[in-house]
Amino acid sequence: MFQVDLNCDLGESFGRYKLGEQEEILKYVTSANIACGFHGGDPSVMRETVKMAISNGVKIGAHPGLPDLNGFGRREMAITPQEGYDMVVYQIGALQGFLMTFNEKMQHVKPHGALYNMAAKDPKLAEAIAQAVYDVSPSLILFGLSGSELTKAGEKIGLRTAHEVFADRTYQADGSLTSRSQKNAMITDQEQSVAQIVKMVTKGIVVSEQKTEVPLRADTICIHGDGAHALAFAKYINETLIKNNITVDAICKLEVQNEKS
Amino acid sequence: MFQVDLNCDLGESFGRYKLGEQEEILKYVTSANIACGFHGGDPSVMRETVKMAISNGVKIGAHPGLPDLNGFGRREMAITPQEGYDMVVYQIGALQGFLMTFNEKMQHVKPHGALYNMAAKDPKLAEAIAQAVYDVSPSLILFGLSGSELTKAGEKIGLRTAHEVFADRTYQADGSLTSRSQKNAMITDQEQSVAQIVKMVTKGIVVSEQKTEVPLRADTICIHGDGAHALAFAKYINETLIKNNITVDAICKLEVQNEKS
Amino acid sequence: MFQVDLNCDLGESFGRYKLGEQEEILKYVTSANIACGFHGGDPSVMRETVKMAISNGVKIGAHPGLPDLNGFGRREMAITPQEGYDMVVYQIGALQGFLMTFNEKMQHVKPHGALYNMAAKDPKLAEAIAQAVYDVSPSLILFGLSGSELTKAGEKIGLRTAHEVFADRTYQADGSLTSRSQKNAMITDQEQSVAQIVKMVTKGIVVSEQKTEVPLRADTICIHGDGAHALAFAKYINETLIKNNITVDAICKLEVQNEKS
Amino acid sequence: MFQVDLNCDLGESFGRYKLGEQEEILKYVTSANIACGFHGGDPSVMRETVKMAISNGVKIGAHPGLPDLNGFGRREMAITPQEGYDMVVYQIGALQGFLMTFNEKMQHVKPHGALYNMAAKDPKLAEAIAQAVYDVSPSLILFGLSGSELTKAGEKIGLRTAHEVFADRTYQADGSLTSRSQKNAMITDQEQSVAQIVKMVTKGIVVSEQKTEVPLRADTICIHGDGAHALAFAKYINETLIKNNITVDAICKLEVQNEKS
Repeated sequence: MFQVDLNCDLGESFGRYKLGEQEEILKYVTSANIACGFHGGDPSVMRETVKMAISNGVKIGAHPGLPDLNGFGRREMAITPQEGYDMVVYQIGALQGFLMTFNEKMQHVKPHGALYNMAAKDPKLAEAIAQAVYDVSPSLILFGLSGSELTKAGEKIGLRTAHEVFADRTYQADGSLTSRSQKNAMITDQEQSVAQIVKMVTKGIVVSEQKTEVPLRADTICIHGDGAHALAFAKYINETLIKNNITVDAICKLEVQNEKS
Repeated sequence: MFQVDLNCDLGESFGRYKLGEQEEILKYVTSANIACGFHGGDPSVMRETVKMAISNGVKIGAHPGLPDLNGFGRREMAITPQEGYDMVVYQIGALQGFLMTFNEKMQHVKPHGALYNMAAKDPKLAEAIAQAVYDVSPSLILFGLSGSELTKAGEKIGLRTAHEVFADRTYQADGSLTSRSQKNAMITDQEQSVAQIVKMVTKGIVVSEQKTEVPLRADTICIHGDGAHALAFAKYINETLIKNNITVDAICKLEVQNEKS
Repeated sequence: MFQVDLNCDLGESFGRYKLGEQEEILKYVTSANIACGFHGGDPSVMRETVKMAISNGVKIGAHPGLPDLNGFGRREMAITPQEGYDMVVYQIGALQGFLMTFNEKMQHVKPHGALYNMAAKDPKLAEAIAQAVYDVSPSLILFGLSGSELTKAGEKIGLRTAHEVFADRTYQADGSLTSRSQKNAMITDQEQSVAQIVKMVTKGIVVSEQKTEVPLRADTICIHGDGAHALAFAKYINETLIKNNITVDAICKLEVQNEKS
Repeated sequence: MFQVDLNCDLGESFGRYKLGEQEEILKYVTSANIACGFHGGDPSVMRETVKMAISNGVKIGAHPGLPDLNGFGRREMAITPQEGYDMVVYQIGALQGFLMTFNEKMQHVKPHGALYNMAAKDPKLAEAIAQAVYDVSPSLILFGLSGSELTKAGEKIGLRTAHEVFADRTYQADGSLTSRSQKNAMITDQEQSVAQIVKMVTKGIVVSEQKTEVPLRADTICIHGDGAHALAFAKYINETLIKNNITVDAICKLEVQNEKS
């Protein structure tokens, strides 16, 4: 019996600036990563997004980012592990405030953008982030790039982790994502994209750009909420997974996988 | 048997910018209002301040402000009640994140600067803030200017409130503070200041600038943490209150007063 | 011979957040008010917008706002006149930096949002802003609400001013705009809107909601750059003005009007 | 005849947060690098600092930093050269606004903190910054670490550059500064520090930690404006240089050095 979670970044609007088609995408995903005001999102956007996710039955996680609204949290910053710890605690807490007003439990934490990428490679930052999540609540599930330093750090400290895979990105022989600076980094063909997903979920394997079979754990799939075909693609992935007898549900409702990925 | 809480604004440093002598003032106060990053404070300062308050046995409250770091949250802004609600939930939550990492319970919420002043006069904003505090947790104690719209709104919704009085400010016949733009707004004489405090706590009365006796509820006294004589004055107030047989302790450890002030 | 300038707010995007259809609207306006990073805009957006305006032959002005990105500069803030002066100097200067890299002269300054509204009513803030513009360069043209405290302050100090009128707003008998909180504040009928404009430009008169004829000076018309019909409406206004033998050109190329409005 | 400029970072306060003893240090330096609002400084602080520098006869330069107030511009950020260009133009312009209100000419530009360090090593960022300075005005003098990529880029594009040396830092055999993470990075002995300065200015040589004599150009010396002994040390350096018959004056009043360092 196969299973997977579909997650999407949400609540990234800021004041008058709107991003994404939140209401619609919530029909096709099972977990929402809600921006917490550092790279995107503001208090009013957070409240509205939390409310919308709840009314769509989508589980909620914090999506903490670097303090760089102008760069949308996508520019790496030389923060210390302690600073990483502190900004993650702050942002989880801020979202938790809104969840408390709705009597809703937070399911997970997924770092955003450059913080996600830095934590995938830097063991010290990864450990600081995992510790932050654990210290706020050991029952939170930590989302990170499949097989990365972040999931490793989460498992070491005793957190449940969700290994994340991408539908629209190609992989290298070592299991890393092909850099966006290279051609062939993105998968634009919808069929190829879904085939990759199904293989990752059912076989635990991705075929790398070098044509090797790379083992990889796929607990949750990242779905994009904006862009021209985002909605149609989300719907299509959701339906295809179900047709392939894969249970699609929020990570907290799925069976815990063997932590040794 | 008389009783009072001594509260102080703390954690208002930001990055390299330092404010106040936090460590020292904590010996003389019983409740700390910790800045939450909008008018002052940052995630690292918040963690350090929470830790320091706990190790000094001082109870912790959130000190949410307007999003105006450059103006230190002291410039009134035309926010809507909904925006007020949202920014208070966000900031309480952010501080709550740090308290969770220390397994510490939050005691209270006290709005900062212009937000405090606006909420003292504007019933709609006051209600929105009281609702925000209540929705996050009905066990939080709401601090507001004694006899203001904010304490009124808190009591109406069912929150415990702490009516705040000032040691170094003079009062008008209607119970309001003398505006800082007028002379005689500040009490600079230490003896006069302490005498006013003792009278407010033991008799529930303040003598106004118009020489009338004004009834007023005094649950907590605002102590300043910076300025030339802050520490000496805090120590002196603390000692004088005790000499006058007034119990000085955190508001949560004091008896609940009759809510009809 | 009648003449008028058409101005539009531009460059209000911020990082990944996009606003307005800049490239297109530049074909129909003669003056561009470029956001300077406080309420919207960032350094890269400013450079791109300046470049685009120049290549479309549109004259450039600074559009300074309150330091409130989350509120898009639309929430009034209790700033002092000195703070108003300083933030206007800073923002004009920042835009001037980009103009220098293109060897382009700045034409005008038009405050944004709440700063514009506050300066229309508050003589002290109006004087501070006029002084800031004058001190940076006496050759700058100050845009303000027609007949407001801001144009008055500009004229008093010796600046050329441009009295601004609105195509899509109704007016009161005293010459002020009908508050947006009232119905009939907006003119949604395109014909009615253009008729009002033509009358203001050719007769110096607007018919108020109270059906009185109110004298008013119309040097420049505010055109909106976003919204569903913005482009079509801008094109239509532009064409209709020309058909009515009204010269449409940047304010600096138009004859100076009698300063007594 | 030997000559040198003494520069100091100023105007780094922000709102209620105060840094440094500006008024005093201005007596002992000849060039002031004024923060432009990104890593420190705000419009009001900038105006006050410009005014103070002028009344002390100190020449003024822009001190642009990364958009990271919380990190004081000291955390490296992965910005593109274009972003570097844009943020430098913006900040030079903003300061230029204040200089225009005082009819004062800007002398130089010195990047701050992490931007300074990144530009010292990264040729592409260095070129973008040099281009930004040149495009705003070719008469500006570019300050950079002596012998760095930044001074190299400035010279290549045709800017006058000022090679900066440090009184309180030790050097490596390759002419780079000893990393602060190593012991012996700082010179705490006042005599040793001044001896190093005099040797750099009169002989063009510094003795490295490896005891080798390293050639190096010394046009301007960085003086710190805060810290316990800043004032006394600034005064001592100033006096000692003069005693050694070294002309101490603003870089724009000194003879242009051979650009081949």
